[in-house]
Amino acid sequence: MNKFRFAVILEDKSSLARLGEIHTSHGTIQTPAFVPVGTQATVKSLTPEELSTLGVEIFIVNTYHAYLRPGMEVIKKFGGLHKFMNWSGPLITDSGGFQVFSLGRKNHQIEVIKSKLSVNERPVGDLVKIDADGVTFTSHWDGSLHRFTPELAMQLQWQLGSDIHIAFDECAPYPSTHENAKEALNRTHAWARRCVVENHKLRITNYNRTFQALYGVVQGGIYRDLREQSADYISSLDIDGIAIGGVSVGESKQEMRDVCDWVIPRLPDDKPRHLLGVGEIDDIFEVIERGVDTFDCVQPTRLARMGILFCSNYPKNTKKYQFDIARKIYADAVEPIDKNCSCYTCTHFSRGYIHHLFRVRELLGYRLATIHNLQFINQLLKSISRSIQSGNYQDFKRNFLNA
Amino acid sequence: MNKFRFAVILEDKSSLARLGEIHTSHGTIQTPAFVPVGTQATVKSLTPEELSTLGVEIFIVNTYHAYLRPGMEVIKKFGGLHKFMNWSGPLITDSGGFQVFSLGRKNHQIEVIKSKLSVNERPVGDLVKIDADGVTFTSHWDGSLHRFTPELAMQLQWQLGSDIHIAFDECAPYPSTHENAKEALNRTHAWARRCVVENHKLRITNYNRTFQALYGVVQGGIYRDLREQSADYISSLDIDGIAIGGVSVGESKQEMRDVCDWVIPRLPDDKPRHLLGVGEIDDIFEVIERGVDTFDCVQPTRLARMGILFCSNYPKNTKKYQFDIARKIYADAVEPIDKNCSCYTCTHFSRGYIHHLFRVRELLGYRLATIHNLQFINQLLKSISRSIQSGNYQDFKRNFLNA
Repeated sequence: MNKFRFAVILEDKSSLARLGEIHTSHGTIQTPAFVPVGTQATVKSLTPEELSTLGVEIFIVNTYHAYLRPGMEVIKKFGGLHKFMNWSGPLITDSGGFQVFSLGRKNHQIEVIKSKLSVNERPVGDLVKIDADGVTFTSHWDGSLHRFTPELAMQLQWQLGSDIHIAFDECAPYPSTHENAKEALNRTHAWARRCVVENHKLRITNYNRTFQALYGVVQGGIYRDLREQSADYISSLDIDGIAIGGVSVGESKQEMRDVCDWVIPRLPDDKPRHLLGVGEIDDIFEVIERGVDTFDCVQPTRLARMGILFCSNYPKNTKKYQFDIARKIYADAVEPIDKNCSCYTCTHFSRGYIHHLFRVRELLGYRLATIHNLQFINQLLKSISRSIQSGNYQDFKRNFLNA
Repeated sequence: MNKFRFAVILEDKSSLARLGEIHTSHGTIQTPAFVPVGTQATVKSLTPEELSTLGVEIFIVNTYHAYLRPGMEVIKKFGGLHKFMNWSGPLITDSGGFQVFSLGRKNHQIEVIKSKLSVNERPVGDLVKIDADGVTFTSHWDGSLHRFTPELAMQLQWQLGSDIHIAFDECAPYPSTHENAKEALNRTHAWARRCVVENHKLRITNYNRTFQALYGVVQGGIYRDLREQSADYISSLDIDGIAIGGVSVGESKQEMRDVCDWVIPRLPDDKPRHLLGVGEIDDIFEVIERGVDTFDCVQPTRLARMGILFCSNYPKNTKKYQFDIARKIYADAVEPIDKNCSCYTCTHFSRGYIHHLFRVRELLGYRLATIHNLQFINQLLKSISRSIQSGNYQDFKRNFLNA
């Protein structure tokens, strides 16, 4: 039954970067890998075939969203997310924790509302109530009341049938005092233990199903002592991989890098490491050379739908590696988004046409942009992997960043 | 240079239906053919490759829309619509007339506004002013003032580079008195003459470009004498094909059929006939057996984006041949939209998944639905053509309609 296996293939000489393979029941992921986000059981605008063509080997679906819609009864009838979405490759689900906190939390403040209003009168998504046992929250769709516990988060992910599950954690808001961050961390650790116990039970109950791996989550905010304590504690649990959470909720990029520097050297070498919610273009080198194997981020696909396109030969007066296709100067541009890109969009369409599609808000525009941004990031990761293989990662990085 | 040629391959024994081929510089269209609408230089949500896979051999782009956005300077720089959209097959453009009238006309009444407001103060798209020479109108985008004449409509279509152009016509509102319809018809005929003259000039000027055909437009509202007069007059002009207009602006389906019955027997057999703006599922048999070769309609693609999906085994309590995928009863349905359909959507996804995509408003839903509706209609047309070939059109029709 245990088809989950992680192998380090090659370690970079100049950094903590490493090439690896995560073997799952649904196929193998070559690492380092960018994990696109398929929040509502779809990577927005793309088919599973297109994802495969783009070299996507795994994506992440949000448990919170799947739980609310289509709902678990539907997922169970289909026998899990894979069949529901018709995606045959590996899949991660998160624990639901991050969404419960972030969607319920306005301006990054937990509002513990002892509301006397009925559920129907409460503002949608406006209640998050944490206790030692779990979290009570309202649906962002209809304001209905729900409750997640570590045990339920495990049960839901087993029903979703993803290849990699994430333990239920409390993602403390940013900024948090040391005291608050510590309190949240203690809860996260207690919940992690309960997740491991529940996961064992579920593995026994579901012994005839394909193996589903469990990653624990390292938290601790921006406090080094808490992060180190968390790294050690989570590493000690009976889990298959380690996720690093809470680095995308408002920290600066430097703080995100610090967290990786504190945490990753303390993690076991033989388990895959996933960084939750990170993946802007300028983060990629930083996280890979700190020893991250996989990382997910909505940004490449979300930016695409806003018309912000990645580009190696980006115009000089714009942000590095990207430009806004909706700007007037692209209206009659006959060249592709990126002349160095081999994606479907760049080999078939001009900047001018894509500018037009965005300007008149045509559906095809969002799709062509998403294809390009995902291809760009996957192409970059392939090039990085090749440079590690051939021992010239630092040269490649320098050339790319100075281009 | 003249690569435009129409050939009738086979005439049905039991009706005026006929199989034909329209040869253009960009390829051949097997008729009868449904012509999808690519209003803003894109058939919403689909790539050119997907259209080809669906058996789409030609689609129509609206001159009015292309003229406003991206605008003719952009189109000229790209060398026409084909290169702009990366579509290598045949293409129709309309004259802009229908859009000018329908977008400018609120509640189907022509408002001839002698406004004293400046352009910026006028309601967007609220002005249509017709005179003998042409039409002045405001952009639905920004309220800016524009003017189309028959000559300009021809020039624009030559710049767009479509394979089939439509003469500039006045589409009278519905209902119109006989007097008003006659007045509009006289203008349409005068404009048709001017289109033919201008088209001759443009053909000489553009002698080294690929041939672009001109269709005249038969108008006359719901008045038999006017329609017959128009059929005779338009047939007498030096044109390559004949379009029938004004049958989708509010007439009943019976009136649309009457118009075809009055007009088509008076048209020359050796020219292709296009019915403008018609193509609901239950219209298809009606127009084909009245001798229509091609017909365009936004409905199959627009319905798709509303979640109304075509189906041969449609549920018994719904409208014939279609159902609303957003209804709750489809939430956990594991079967495809149509078990008899071989499209990408039906061979890969369930009703339940597509229901979910529509319920949470995911982009992929609009696309999968569009693929299905276009495949359904093209599959139906193929079956009709085969039944004509094998001499059992009436049997096929009876079986399909009673299924």
